Amino acid sequence: MSDCIFCKIADGEIPATVVFEDDELLAFEDVNPRAPVHVLIIPKEHLSTMNDPGPEHETLLGRMMLLASRIAKERGVSEGGYRVLVNCNADGGQEVFHLHMHVIGGRRLGPMA
Amino acid sequence: MSDCIFCKIADGEIPATVVFEDDELLAFEDVNPRAPVHVLIIPKEHLSTMNDPGPEHETLLGRMMLLASRIAKERGVSEGGYRVLVNCNADGGQEVFHLHMHVIGGRRLGPMA
Repeated sequence: MSDCIFCKIADGEIPATVVFEDDELLAFEDVNPRAPVHVLIIPKEHLSTMNDPGPEHETLLGRMMLLASRIAKERGVSEGGYRVLVNCNADGGQEVFHLHMHVIGGRRLGPMA
Repeated sequence: MSDCIFCKIADGEIPATVVFEDDELLAFEDVNPRAPVHVLIIPKEHLSTMNDPGPEHETLLGRMMLLASRIAKERGVSEGGYRVLVNCNADGGQEVFHLHMHVIGGRRLGPMA
């Protein structure tokens, strides 16, 4: 998607503070963090929302979840606690329409919705 | 886990309004819903928190995510929007220590953390 900011980050056209990268996934610091730890995990493949993955993305989604848990451990928030979430469309508060998972921690988080 | 409320729901010892069940997963209505749609998805296997899954749970976690998306569609909130999330430990607001994924929608949701 030529006009997608997260595709441009995945392509290296827009800089980001990358914390993990492999062939399928990229994780980077949220530029507007809501907590001391706020990392985004995206698939490099452009999927717009959580409505888009199909059975062929099962492993990809599982890998995103495991990476979220790993990042929480690496950042030292796994024992204190954190939240892993995906917002979908307007009611969910989705702001960038490239599927992304938030890993948020480092303080006592507020209500989940 | 003999004292785990979600294991008891998975075993049928405690009633719940089940919306999906197979060999690995169970989805049921949250008894204290935070929005018009509030469904919980659990693995039948007892995992306490998001810190516990290992590589052997990759497919399980991917299936949970796909089920979340499917439930949002079935409930008619996929286009309006929803949030999929897992809370881990105290800072995340985890209340039951059996890994569970929230699917929340049906209204404009508040801040994610």
